[in-house]
Amino acid sequence: MARKIKLKGNLQVQVILTPGMIPLYDLDGKIAVVIDILRATSSMCVALENGAVDIMPVESVEEARSFKIGKFVCAAERDGKKVEGFDLGNSPFDYTEKVVKGKSVVMTTTNGTQAINLSRFAYRMVTGAFLNIDKLCEWLLVQDRDILLVCSGWKNKFNLEDTIFAGAVISRIKHKFEVNDDAGIMAENLWDTAKDNLFGYVMKAAHAQRFERLGIERDVKFCLQLGTTDIIPEMVGNYLVKMKKF
Amino acid sequence: MARKIKLKGNLQVQVILTPGMIPLYDLDGKIAVVIDILRATSSMCVALENGAVDIMPVESVEEARSFKIGKFVCAAERDGKKVEGFDLGNSPFDYTEKVVKGKSVVMTTTNGTQAINLSRFAYRMVTGAFLNIDKLCEWLLVQDRDILLVCSGWKNKFNLEDTIFAGAVISRIKHKFEVNDDAGIMAENLWDTAKDNLFGYVMKAAHAQRFERLGIERDVKFCLQLGTTDIIPEMVGNYLVKMKKF
Repeated sequence: MARKIKLKGNLQVQVILTPGMIPLYDLDGKIAVVIDILRATSSMCVALENGAVDIMPVESVEEARSFKIGKFVCAAERDGKKVEGFDLGNSPFDYTEKVVKGKSVVMTTTNGTQAINLSRFAYRMVTGAFLNIDKLCEWLLVQDRDILLVCSGWKNKFNLEDTIFAGAVISRIKHKFEVNDDAGIMAENLWDTAKDNLFGYVMKAAHAQRFERLGIERDVKFCLQLGTTDIIPEMVGNYLVKMKKF
Repeated sequence: MARKIKLKGNLQVQVILTPGMIPLYDLDGKIAVVIDILRATSSMCVALENGAVDIMPVESVEEARSFKIGKFVCAAERDGKKVEGFDLGNSPFDYTEKVVKGKSVVMTTTNGTQAINLSRFAYRMVTGAFLNIDKLCEWLLVQDRDILLVCSGWKNKFNLEDTIFAGAVISRIKHKFEVNDDAGIMAENLWDTAKDNLFGYVMKAAHAQRFERLGIERDVKFCLQLGTTDIIPEMVGNYLVKMKKF
């Protein structure tokens, strides 16, 4: 009992709503979970699941382009669309075994890769998606570290789907981690509202409406599946790799 | 009917979650409603209601201090507490008729006055609080302008009470204004959750918990009363004044 109280008092989870707010938080010694449900961190799970060796997130399209001469598979998305001249965009359906197996993937996206680069100075940095939520939460629960759930948002504005996911994680770990910020309280509330009709709720979002116009509801449906993979992508040096067994 | 559809298509309401996000939005031609429920924009209603001539929001304590030699009543709050050497903090109970009637008030607060200063380049800028929500929404509904609801937050982080208020406004004006951003959808959801037990819900907030430690739950209760005043504070030049009849 005393142990439980001590733990709850010591370990905290906070939600960062956009990459632009990352500098307001102290990353030191904490675990950062970067979230870009539609679609970067969902596709990262798929890429590693389908045998990609690693993923190098880079910030600019130019940087990604510079890797095209090498052995890399290069992916670039801006404003929800694949950038011309690239092998892949950020749709999870792009990252098939045929395309990524045994390969290093270089990836730049509108929001997710920026959030990753701003979060890499945390003690450990992993990526979260509905696809890996089960394993992710299982892992978070056995860490003795404060957690920052970092939403990638949309061009530094708030987005629904990343925040709903942060709320889903909180609902699963709050018996061990204290939710001591307003963003965390809000995120859990949003998850409670959305969970019984996740697709319907997320499609309300401005971002998803943009997706609807782009004709990629199939991607949205795919990315809202819960716990389909055991992979936790983790940043090691400049690469996201499959976390070894814990 | 055609008129109504046209209006809904043209007029939009968006929610800015923190002052730090204001530069991401285009203020030009829009009405900005600055919100700092606990407690700056609530106290501003009270000050004007109790006969203050005008309120000059300033950013720094030093700036506020420089006005102490003049005819001004000077108010300064930092971290929820009155700054030493000032007549007033930002508790609504400080702004009695005896203190403010016929006077100009100079005011600096941790969050609200920054949000005001960053929003003043909107077409018109007013302040919102639960205390004036009825009159505010009545006025917003007869404007033919897009609306930005600007939450003051807490040191550039998200806060619950300002966002809940933004949601309350949206619930009252959405038949005329299109909610086309994710923050607006979330804010209305938060209002729906909180509205039947506003005090209980707001006291969950990190910010309110700080208030509890400071012993000012009385202020929180006061600031969560709906529609107790007809005053809409509006920025004219460098001063917030009572909006004339509309």
